[in-house]
Amino acid sequence: MLSFIFYVALVVEAMTAALAAGRRKMDWFGVCVLACVTALGGGSARDILLGHYPLTWVGNPYLLLLVCAAALFTIAIARVVDKLHWPFLLLDALGLVVFTIIGCNVALEMGHPPLIVIVAGMITGIVGGILRDVLCNDVPLVFSGELYATVSIVTGAIYFFGLQFGFNSEFVISAAMAVGFSLRVLAIVLKWEMPKFVYDKDLR
Amino acid sequence: MLSFIFYVALVVEAMTAALAAGRRKMDWFGVCVLACVTALGGGSARDILLGHYPLTWVGNPYLLLLVCAAALFTIAIARVVDKLHWPFLLLDALGLVVFTIIGCNVALEMGHPPLIVIVAGMITGIVGGILRDVLCNDVPLVFSGELYATVSIVTGAIYFFGLQFGFNSEFVISAAMAVGFSLRVLAIVLKWEMPKFVYDKDLR
Amino acid sequence: MLSFIFYVALVVEAMTAALAAGRRKMDWFGVCVLACVTALGGGSARDILLGHYPLTWVGNPYLLLLVCAAALFTIAIARVVDKLHWPFLLLDALGLVVFTIIGCNVALEMGHPPLIVIVAGMITGIVGGILRDVLCNDVPLVFSGELYATVSIVTGAIYFFGLQFGFNSEFVISAAMAVGFSLRVLAIVLKWEMPKFVYDKDLR
Repeated sequence: MLSFIFYVALVVEAMTAALAAGRRKMDWFGVCVLACVTALGGGSARDILLGHYPLTWVGNPYLLLLVCAAALFTIAIARVVDKLHWPFLLLDALGLVVFTIIGCNVALEMGHPPLIVIVAGMITGIVGGILRDVLCNDVPLVFSGELYATVSIVTGAIYFFGLQFGFNSEFVISAAMAVGFSLRVLAIVLKWEMPKFVYDKDLR
Repeated sequence: MLSFIFYVALVVEAMTAALAAGRRKMDWFGVCVLACVTALGGGSARDILLGHYPLTWVGNPYLLLLVCAAALFTIAIARVVDKLHWPFLLLDALGLVVFTIIGCNVALEMGHPPLIVIVAGMITGIVGGILRDVLCNDVPLVFSGELYATVSIVTGAIYFFGLQFGFNSEFVISAAMAVGFSLRVLAIVLKWEMPKFVYDKDLR
Repeated sequence: MLSFIFYVALVVEAMTAALAAGRRKMDWFGVCVLACVTALGGGSARDILLGHYPLTWVGNPYLLLLVCAAALFTIAIARVVDKLHWPFLLLDALGLVVFTIIGCNVALEMGHPPLIVIVAGMITGIVGGILRDVLCNDVPLVFSGELYATVSIVTGAIYFFGLQFGFNSEFVISAAMAVGFSLRVLAIVLKWEMPKFVYDKDLR
């Protein structure tokens, strides 16, 4: 079940990346690279920072094909996609939560302390989008007020402390997913935002 | 022979990076760093992603000196360089092909499957240029339609499957280089381009 | 003593990053991430490039809390900060020198040759600032003429060759810090600049 949602999340991330690439008028190859970086970059960053080899896509290269296929398919159906605004946001929220739990799990199995487990989940959840924005020459969207990374942190904390308190692992996963997903959807619907720090003077 | 072209390719990559740095009015130190990142970044990215330590330049630190020397030399002869437009494009094409074969070879020796071998070659060939463009605050050029990464993929595929079919390794290297190089030169001369994906609506 | 200055340097780097985030109107989470990347990114880049695991902050996760606390504190006192222009520059100069020595030391203990030791020090000193500028969508400041990386190289060289010539390690550290710090301060006061390479023609 978790791994099924993982594949769905990869596809969704690939599709959002493809649309971002289209906005920058990239070629088809660029679309595929940006999709791979966005969908697989979070997990790769986590694995490189923790020294956890081989990376997911190196061990399962067919993931690259899945992501590229999803990206190229997006080119074909781009016109339909903007009618799918809501399904997209929901699947993206689900993906964020699943990526986070998978990331926490990798750090847990390596025996890392709580803070690193939660950070590993967050890196898995958000770094793909940061790399996408850097390659598209934008300031990363995840820093601009949306309740996105916070959702990842909350999900990771529930997962870690749930397991810690000895609850059944399936129950903990379901609870973390339910809370994280609801939080993200509420944040979108109610337009919750993180407070911003605006500083105009130039230090230099 | 391959390693001789490798050095030539490092020098050429360093020189193109130096010119890019000059367009951004960087200082001499920035010129050297950008040259190192461009010339050695592809191989470093490959080694970090595959967990292949030590990195090439850590094992052979004199490569850093070679690249910096080439970059500083470019400052001195910048006026001459734009008369060398064609030799540059040809050497750059040769470099792309050689970097690709070296990258494929590293993945092959580590025992990776075909797709990873070809991706490793492509990463070695194109990531340096992507990092250069990100540090210069541009959308990476390699995504903008030129037949560049495709050349790398074709070269890597010929190399891998040539070896797989049991041909003599020197013959396979020559064939991969000849096809890749010709394809790149033809793409420049005939202005072949990858199709682009242009998407204007903002999803958000 | 060195480790005390290391903590001060982390805090100072976190604070400059927070101000940079404020100029980009990032949210509080973005402020924390940018602070972590800036303060801990140099050491992480060094460790990943040299294959030196675990990374500093993975082994000591409380460093993440220290850096985030410093960043959030900066939001509260932003108005006071621009009156602290000079103390900031001095602490930043001290941080650069200490980061460099710590970075050199890691490479030394791994048994790397002189050039890699000095490069490792420089990476530890300057990569954090480069990542900050890339995430803020700027061309990295360190390439724009300030005598910053050069200070790091000089400090690293004094440290390495001082130890090599058999001097007492505490004496060598003090000497490297004194020279590096003075050089940086002199460069700021006297407005020393690296020569720039300006190249206008477009190669392409």
